[in-house]
Amino acid sequence: MCPEKVKVGVLGATGAVGQRFVQLLQGHPWFELTALCSSERTAGKRYGEACNWLIGGAVPTHLRDVVLQECVPGPECDIMFSALPGDQATTIEKEFAAAGYAVCSNASSHRYDPDIPLLIPEVNPEHMGLIDVQKRNRGWSGFITTNPNCSTTHLVSALHPLHVRFGIQKVFVATMQAISGAGYPGVASMDILDNVVPYIGGEEEKMEQKEPHKLLGKFNGAKIEYANLVVSAHCNRVPVLDGHLEVVSIEFAQKPTQEEIIQAWRDYKPLPQQLELPSAPQPAVIYLDEPNRPQPRLDRMAGTIPGMATTAGRLRPDPLFDYKFVLLGHNTVRGAAGGSLLNAELLLAHGYLGQVAATWAGAFELA
Amino acid sequence: MCPEKVKVGVLGATGAVGQRFVQLLQGHPWFELTALCSSERTAGKRYGEACNWLIGGAVPTHLRDVVLQECVPGPECDIMFSALPGDQATTIEKEFAAAGYAVCSNASSHRYDPDIPLLIPEVNPEHMGLIDVQKRNRGWSGFITTNPNCSTTHLVSALHPLHVRFGIQKVFVATMQAISGAGYPGVASMDILDNVVPYIGGEEEKMEQKEPHKLLGKFNGAKIEYANLVVSAHCNRVPVLDGHLEVVSIEFAQKPTQEEIIQAWRDYKPLPQQLELPSAPQPAVIYLDEPNRPQPRLDRMAGTIPGMATTAGRLRPDPLFDYKFVLLGHNTVRGAAGGSLLNAELLLAHGYLGQVAATWAGAFELA
Amino acid sequence: MCPEKVKVGVLGATGAVGQRFVQLLQGHPWFELTALCSSERTAGKRYGEACNWLIGGAVPTHLRDVVLQECVPGPECDIMFSALPGDQATTIEKEFAAAGYAVCSNASSHRYDPDIPLLIPEVNPEHMGLIDVQKRNRGWSGFITTNPNCSTTHLVSALHPLHVRFGIQKVFVATMQAISGAGYPGVASMDILDNVVPYIGGEEEKMEQKEPHKLLGKFNGAKIEYANLVVSAHCNRVPVLDGHLEVVSIEFAQKPTQEEIIQAWRDYKPLPQQLELPSAPQPAVIYLDEPNRPQPRLDRMAGTIPGMATTAGRLRPDPLFDYKFVLLGHNTVRGAAGGSLLNAELLLAHGYLGQVAATWAGAFELA
Amino acid sequence: MCPEKVKVGVLGATGAVGQRFVQLLQGHPWFELTALCSSERTAGKRYGEACNWLIGGAVPTHLRDVVLQECVPGPECDIMFSALPGDQATTIEKEFAAAGYAVCSNASSHRYDPDIPLLIPEVNPEHMGLIDVQKRNRGWSGFITTNPNCSTTHLVSALHPLHVRFGIQKVFVATMQAISGAGYPGVASMDILDNVVPYIGGEEEKMEQKEPHKLLGKFNGAKIEYANLVVSAHCNRVPVLDGHLEVVSIEFAQKPTQEEIIQAWRDYKPLPQQLELPSAPQPAVIYLDEPNRPQPRLDRMAGTIPGMATTAGRLRPDPLFDYKFVLLGHNTVRGAAGGSLLNAELLLAHGYLGQVAATWAGAFELA
Repeated sequence: MCPEKVKVGVLGATGAVGQRFVQLLQGHPWFELTALCSSERTAGKRYGEACNWLIGGAVPTHLRDVVLQECVPGPECDIMFSALPGDQATTIEKEFAAAGYAVCSNASSHRYDPDIPLLIPEVNPEHMGLIDVQKRNRGWSGFITTNPNCSTTHLVSALHPLHVRFGIQKVFVATMQAISGAGYPGVASMDILDNVVPYIGGEEEKMEQKEPHKLLGKFNGAKIEYANLVVSAHCNRVPVLDGHLEVVSIEFAQKPTQEEIIQAWRDYKPLPQQLELPSAPQPAVIYLDEPNRPQPRLDRMAGTIPGMATTAGRLRPDPLFDYKFVLLGHNTVRGAAGGSLLNAELLLAHGYLGQVAATWAGAFELA
Repeated sequence: MCPEKVKVGVLGATGAVGQRFVQLLQGHPWFELTALCSSERTAGKRYGEACNWLIGGAVPTHLRDVVLQECVPGPECDIMFSALPGDQATTIEKEFAAAGYAVCSNASSHRYDPDIPLLIPEVNPEHMGLIDVQKRNRGWSGFITTNPNCSTTHLVSALHPLHVRFGIQKVFVATMQAISGAGYPGVASMDILDNVVPYIGGEEEKMEQKEPHKLLGKFNGAKIEYANLVVSAHCNRVPVLDGHLEVVSIEFAQKPTQEEIIQAWRDYKPLPQQLELPSAPQPAVIYLDEPNRPQPRLDRMAGTIPGMATTAGRLRPDPLFDYKFVLLGHNTVRGAAGGSLLNAELLLAHGYLGQVAATWAGAFELA
Repeated sequence: MCPEKVKVGVLGATGAVGQRFVQLLQGHPWFELTALCSSERTAGKRYGEACNWLIGGAVPTHLRDVVLQECVPGPECDIMFSALPGDQATTIEKEFAAAGYAVCSNASSHRYDPDIPLLIPEVNPEHMGLIDVQKRNRGWSGFITTNPNCSTTHLVSALHPLHVRFGIQKVFVATMQAISGAGYPGVASMDILDNVVPYIGGEEEKMEQKEPHKLLGKFNGAKIEYANLVVSAHCNRVPVLDGHLEVVSIEFAQKPTQEEIIQAWRDYKPLPQQLELPSAPQPAVIYLDEPNRPQPRLDRMAGTIPGMATTAGRLRPDPLFDYKFVLLGHNTVRGAAGGSLLNAELLLAHGYLGQVAATWAGAFELA
Repeated sequence: MCPEKVKVGVLGATGAVGQRFVQLLQGHPWFELTALCSSERTAGKRYGEACNWLIGGAVPTHLRDVVLQECVPGPECDIMFSALPGDQATTIEKEFAAAGYAVCSNASSHRYDPDIPLLIPEVNPEHMGLIDVQKRNRGWSGFITTNPNCSTTHLVSALHPLHVRFGIQKVFVATMQAISGAGYPGVASMDILDNVVPYIGGEEEKMEQKEPHKLLGKFNGAKIEYANLVVSAHCNRVPVLDGHLEVVSIEFAQKPTQEEIIQAWRDYKPLPQQLELPSAPQPAVIYLDEPNRPQPRLDRMAGTIPGMATTAGRLRPDPLFDYKFVLLGHNTVRGAAGGSLLNAELLLAHGYLGQVAATWAGAFELA
């Protein structure tokens, strides 16, 4: 009755994001983790040895003795999750896509390629249409999808329900980003203890010029027409382990009331929540009434699927824009591995995984 | 040859800001600390006993055995620095002013009274003129002056040289404020370790509606005509001991080039720097070229008088405003006790301390 | 088939430990939370209002509107968990015990009373026998049991399997204790950020003179004969949210080999684990082989019941004693609320809850 | 009248300890910094460019444009301070000593060489005698001296005045060491935020087997006869920027009273304090009476020469040893660069700098 699980692998399995993939795939109802791939330096070692487990607890027992493979097409699986660093991702992901794998990548390398979708399943599931364009263009039997940067993911997740109703024109955002966003070893403790660093290389550019515009853009059958909102971003690193906090001011095409905005968040039930995808939090956006929330330590794991929801609060008028508010999201769960995982669930639900997924065909009532 | 030192006291001497007054007055060339006043609960105790010294090191040896007095007019001194909490400051400061003391207050109680100056010596020294209005209005032989809130102080200090040249119309600011800004015991460690709190009671209102407008306003001989810039503020508490970091976006009446702004900061030599007041840093505003500065831990003590300067950096164009930049300042030095102290130095230099200061008359060449 | 759940309440439900009780009782298989009691100041308010929820996430939805009761006998329940501060616990717990409640207390007030058991179910379950002595002595229909201080709990939990086999004579311990051990607001952030405080009032006395000796003592049918090991403790507060780390050196009556010690920990399966009590972690003590573990952030939630196990590591010879090692345990879970909860489970399994528990009689095969 | 300053250089000038050397040498009354040497990678660059200044503030203005030299004998100076990492120090320091330089090293490479002194000027100035042995043995015109590891330095500094009076036989120490002790980038923030790491590679061995024994040993004219006290050490890394805290238990040959110990610390006036060496704090050991001190943030800069003194507190009886107490010292000032600097001052005062120092000959009245 229940179809067989889809085999999946992880590229870059020993790093901070790779570990989150491994953690989130434990006991997954649809996917079975069958391949752990890593750099040449560690390939051949057992996962338990090669991995400095950062998340808390220990490497899952059944994976301790799994031997790491090199990042070369071959492993018997259908989906490859990529937690590779940008420089390695560029080539390796293409090789896997050419070899027929569905690559669900968290790397930034291909996010802005015109024929590669940058996906948040709640926001722009129709961008999956680019996959056909991509396969045609490149002559690949597989394909690549990407998810956005951790700070953009939660910003756009909170803005999307407002954008579709009221049209967002201007966004001002100042971020306070967790150290785990820089990977491991990442930020030196001497740089961040009793300190804030008001600079994260490349981050402001991603938020101001690239990601929100593609994510909120329209797929016209051939390419994405970028949305034309204007974004200004100040990005800061703070001494917090997990959870990016963002203070946001916004201006609308049609200014709603404060109640209408909160209602838009509370009514929001996009495709992944309708399909009840296994990693889709219910609701997608949580709005808190307390005057001093959300806060990273208290709210980063909020919601039905820990770390997958975006939490908002403190909506109030802004003297320079229409409104301002605070948002928070987990950067290595929804903002990284969890984002790719939900993309894969969406692809499976929509029949984008070919023969492999044929047996799953009847399992979904698509919107 | 050198005139006798002016006797000064501190109201609220045992608290966090009170301790900074005590620290900054050690070895002061013009002032001699002769009275330490505190609440009824601790009055009568020795300072060394009553004081949980928070700054590092220990209570200055020569003050350990000084007996705390109550906050009632009587101590033989001319200037009373006030580190009282708001609720106590309201009445007590008036009593001292009525009794002939020059009260230099860090409390917020009287900051917005129309006849009481809110002073930053670099920014609006001419507001001292209100003192005559105040004494007339109230029939006091003494008077009250105040300094602004810690986050406003550094914001306005950085904006002032730009405002006088290019006219600032809009200011967007998101603050990341140190825990010492909340006093002691202040922020519970369980609220701030591995966390950020996106809310500081009353802080956004002070920045948006009250302080910058009075500070940058014009004294017309009778009252202050508030400046009409528009400010939007997001205030956040971060796990940093000292030093408020602020990310700022600004729009000008006449948009300068990036170079002109940096030049305006580098050329800035306002009155306290011209007079070489003992607590006036040279320069008043430091601009750093490094891409990731200023940072609280590295820059809060920058400059010739540790903790008294404002440091700026990362000036760059803003997609929604003209420019954006980062600024930093020490919140309990310049942003609190040091602000009051520099006010007192300005008052002395300008002859506002009456007979007491008569012997100082020839000591300054006023601008 | 399954007996009805036992009704339980929490005294001091709004504090840090009270919140842990509430959290741990959610979905408990045996207990149903029916009464939340608090101080006069908050009694009458709804729990959601009165409670500054510190644990992360939010007050459980179904408890938000529960009205807080005063700490006065009356609530319809059989077990009262006490998270009261010491000064209030003294009287209130006695009133509840006199009125027939089984009071499972985390407070220190009655820990050293000769007829009140200080229990760790793995270590000294036979001390439950004191309950009969206590009821006789005091003429109470109910009774009080207590659990030890957070740092003692994990120390004795790790030592017990070694003590029963090899006889421990000397214990040297230096603790690095989490801020949550001081409750809320507890430790001021200005006291602990970028700092360690080498002093925790009363803590060293508890470890050196009182708790380990009673816990490892023998119940002779009338009273506890204290164990005569010698303990030296240095207690320190560190900037860690949860998890007390302790470095320990020990000397035995019969010195075992290093392997024998590790084997003793790995073989350890005391009563709660045999009975499979719902909150008993399997195993009770985890030994890690990595050279730099346990660590608070990574290991405080280790084991099958998060926060209930004790983790040890780094066993090695000591130049002054026989061996030294590192141990870690969660201070507000096993070290506080979870300790009381496991005590209550043990009491129920052993028939100490009277008529109420009659229906549970056949549910356990006691050791 | 005042002799010309002695020219000095720094090997490894861009690292964390190198920067402390540079900072401490600013305005030094005897030494003039004339050479900054670094690895091949940065040699040739200007110091201001090559250096990520970690201490706070900025690279001293007059050094910004100094061009870094390679670590090869040649620079015109008499003393070479070495902040080299261990692996590089081994060879490079020997080359400089052979070439006639007085190398004052903070590296561990040569600390345990039998003919190289491991010096704390307060503790074992007579070990300077090894320099003649060393020069004879090795045929060098220069020589090497070393200072101990940061955690040993402060431990032995606090113990020395007690050892000479009462004879210390056993020392138990548990350290809580600051992150700056691991250099830069050193400890990853993800490893230490909200955490403690109960392991520092090689540190316990240094304290247990090597350094205290050599430091407290006797120079018999040919070599050091190691002291035979027994030390047990537990070393831990805590989230503190600077300042190693150590909790210590001790046993004496002749057990003194508590008052005698405190008196021994208060009376302590060893050679550097008698000679009034410029970097010698007065007193060398500070004893605090407060029940919760010393603390790293409050006391690491205590004393007349910030960061150079050792602070002790909380002396009390120990159930297993004679007494226990708490000590604190700055790890990168006295525990590293400042230790080497004071060694150099001692060498100059004692005529160990040859012709160069001839002009200084009359400047000291030696003990």
